[in-house]
Amino acid sequence: MQDFSRRRFMQGAAAATLAAPFVSTATRAASPDKKLGVALCGLGNLSTNQIAPALQKTEHCRLAGIVTGTPGKADEWRRKYDLPKRSVYSYDTMHRMADNDDIDIVYVVTPNALHLEHTVAAAKAGKHVFCEKPLEISVERCQQMIDACKSAGRMLGTAYRCRFEPHHLECIRIAREQELGAVRIIEAGFGIDVGRPDQWRVKHALSGGGALMDVGVYALQATRYLTGEEPVLVTATETKTDPVKFKEVDETVTWTAQFPSGATAYCTASFKVGGIKNFRANCERGWFELDPAYYYGGIKGSRSDGKPLSFPAVDMFAAEIDDFARCVKERRPTIVPGEEGMQDVKIMTAIYESIRTGRAVRI
Amino acid sequence: MQDFSRRRFMQGAAAATLAAPFVSTATRAASPDKKLGVALCGLGNLSTNQIAPALQKTEHCRLAGIVTGTPGKADEWRRKYDLPKRSVYSYDTMHRMADNDDIDIVYVVTPNALHLEHTVAAAKAGKHVFCEKPLEISVERCQQMIDACKSAGRMLGTAYRCRFEPHHLECIRIAREQELGAVRIIEAGFGIDVGRPDQWRVKHALSGGGALMDVGVYALQATRYLTGEEPVLVTATETKTDPVKFKEVDETVTWTAQFPSGATAYCTASFKVGGIKNFRANCERGWFELDPAYYYGGIKGSRSDGKPLSFPAVDMFAAEIDDFARCVKERRPTIVPGEEGMQDVKIMTAIYESIRTGRAVRI
Repeated sequence: MQDFSRRRFMQGAAAATLAAPFVSTATRAASPDKKLGVALCGLGNLSTNQIAPALQKTEHCRLAGIVTGTPGKADEWRRKYDLPKRSVYSYDTMHRMADNDDIDIVYVVTPNALHLEHTVAAAKAGKHVFCEKPLEISVERCQQMIDACKSAGRMLGTAYRCRFEPHHLECIRIAREQELGAVRIIEAGFGIDVGRPDQWRVKHALSGGGALMDVGVYALQATRYLTGEEPVLVTATETKTDPVKFKEVDETVTWTAQFPSGATAYCTASFKVGGIKNFRANCERGWFELDPAYYYGGIKGSRSDGKPLSFPAVDMFAAEIDDFARCVKERRPTIVPGEEGMQDVKIMTAIYESIRTGRAVRI
Repeated sequence: MQDFSRRRFMQGAAAATLAAPFVSTATRAASPDKKLGVALCGLGNLSTNQIAPALQKTEHCRLAGIVTGTPGKADEWRRKYDLPKRSVYSYDTMHRMADNDDIDIVYVVTPNALHLEHTVAAAKAGKHVFCEKPLEISVERCQQMIDACKSAGRMLGTAYRCRFEPHHLECIRIAREQELGAVRIIEAGFGIDVGRPDQWRVKHALSGGGALMDVGVYALQATRYLTGEEPVLVTATETKTDPVKFKEVDETVTWTAQFPSGATAYCTASFKVGGIKNFRANCERGWFELDPAYYYGGIKGSRSDGKPLSFPAVDMFAAEIDDFARCVKERRPTIVPGEEGMQDVKIMTAIYESIRTGRAVRI
C-alpha cells in the first residue's frame, strides 16, 4: 500500500517538476522557517471548533484565508482571525486564489460530494489540497481529484488525523514489528448519535452514504493500517431502526473483511448508537487496543501483556496539517495521499455493494 | 424463543405422563431431598477437570455412573468416585442403564457427532439427557435427539452454562428491562488456541465444524439471549492460516447477523487466536460488557455508566446441572431445552452456508 502510494506520488512529483506553479511554490516554500498559508474551505463545526484552533498550534502553518458560502461567517472569521479581505472567498470566487501568494494549501472541509469541485478549483488555482475524509463519494470522483492535483503539479492529502496520533502510531509499530506476533483478528467500530435530521450527513446527494462513509471510514482505515494490507473480500449488512431520519443513508452497517495474509476483521459503523469507538487487534501472542480510538482527544490504549500504551495528548489536526505542510516544504510524499483516501472509498463501495447484492464482494 | 421452547416442552411433558418410565422416575424424584444420580458419558478433559468436580458441589445431583470407551479410565474413576461396578458402562453397554435406578440423568460429554447416538441410547434406557453444546452437527440430528427424548418421555437439556451464571443473567436483565435502552449493536467473539492437531475438535466427522461450532456457539448464544430474538440474516467469511492443522474444519470465522428489531451483531470465533472472550452490547443509552465472558471462571463485567456489574464466582457446571435436576424433580421446563441447542445449530449451518456460497443467508 505504501509502496503503491509512494510510487504513485513519485510519478506525480516527477510530473510536478515540469509544472510551473509547483516550482514557484517550492521555491518560496524552500525556506524552512516560513509558515505555509492554509485556507479553510467550508466553515462548519469541524473548521470552527477543531481545525481553526488547531492551526494556531502548528509549527509550519497559519490560517491565511477562508472559503465560505455564508457572508455572515466570512465577516465573523475575518474579525476573529484578522484575515485580509482579499483572502476571503466564496465557492464561486475561490479560483481567484491563483493570485494570492499568501495561500499555499487549501484544506477542504465541505460535504463529501463537494470535495471534487473544491479540490479542482484549488488545484487549478495552484494550491496544494488537504481534504477531509471520505475523500469523495465514488472512486471515479476521487480519481478526478488525484488527476486534477497531478495535472496542476500540486499535492493532495487525505485528512486521516489518526495517522499522526502517537497511540495509533505505536499500534502500527507493534503490528509491523509483530511484537505480539502477526495481527490475526481485528475488531473495530465507530458509532455516533448523528443528531439533527437536517444536516448534510443524512442527505445522500451530499454525503454519498451514512454511517459507513462518515465514521466507518475510521474503523476501515484502522483495519488497513494495522494489517498493512488491503482487504480482498468483504461481506456486510445494514440495519435501520429510524427509516425517517435515515431514509437516504445507512444507519448501521456491520461488515467482515479478509486480508491476504489470513488476517480478518469484523467491524461496525453507526449513526444511531454512540459509544462504539474502538479497535482491538488480536495477534498471535496477545492483543492491543485503543478505546476510545477515534475521538479528538482522550485516546486510551492497553495491551494484553499489561505494558503501557499511553502517550501525552496531541492536537491531531495540528499534527496532520503540520505533516502535510512539511511534505509540501520538503517536496516529499505524504503517507496519506489521495490514493489512500480513494482506496477507502473503493472498499466502502464494495461494502455497499455487498449490502445491496447480499453477496460477498471480492475487491 | 422462550415461549416456543416452553410450548414444545409442555407438549413433551403431556406425552410423558403416558410414558411409564417417566412416571416411575417422577415418583422417585418427587422427594425434594433426594439427589438425582448423574452418569457422565465421555470422560475427556471437560468431564475430568470440570464436570465431575462440579457434581461434588451440587445440591441436587451426585455422580452415580460413568460411560467410557477406555477401561483404564473406568477403573480410575471407579476408585476415585467410589462407584459401584454395575454403574460403569461402555458405549456398547449403556443401554443396560435401563435396569439401574441409581442413574436419573445422563450428561453427554462426547464429541459433537456422537451426541445423537448417546442421547438416543440414554433416552431409550429411560434417562433424562443433559448434553454438551453444540447439541449435534446438523439440525436433523438435533431433531432426532429431541424426538428420541420426547418419545421416551424424558427431558433433554443443552449445557449452556453461561445461562446460569450471574454476570450473564444480569446482562440479560439489563437487556430485557432496557435499562440502557434497547440493545442495538452487539460485538461478541471467542477464540482459543486449540492446541494438539490430533484432537477430535479438528476432525470434521467428529466435530461437524471447527471454531464456529466449538467456541463460536458461545458468541452466537450471547447475541441471541441479549437481544431475546432470533437472527434473520447472516453473512460470514472464513480465514485459514494453518491449512494443515485446520484441513477439515474452520480456523477463524467472522460473521454479521441481523435481528428483527433492527439489532445487529458482528462476531468472531477462532481456533487459532486466543484472548478473544467477550461480548459488548451497545444500547440506545450506553453499553454493558463481559470480558472475559466465557471462561470457566474470572468473569468480569462493566457498564458505560460505571455502575457495578460484578458478582461472586459460581461453579457454572454445578449451576447448570443443578438447574436441570430441579427441572426434572419439579417437572418444569428447562430454559435450555434441546430446541435451544438445535436453534444454534440451525444458525451455524446458515453461517457455514454463507461462507460456502458467498451470499447473505436468510434464516
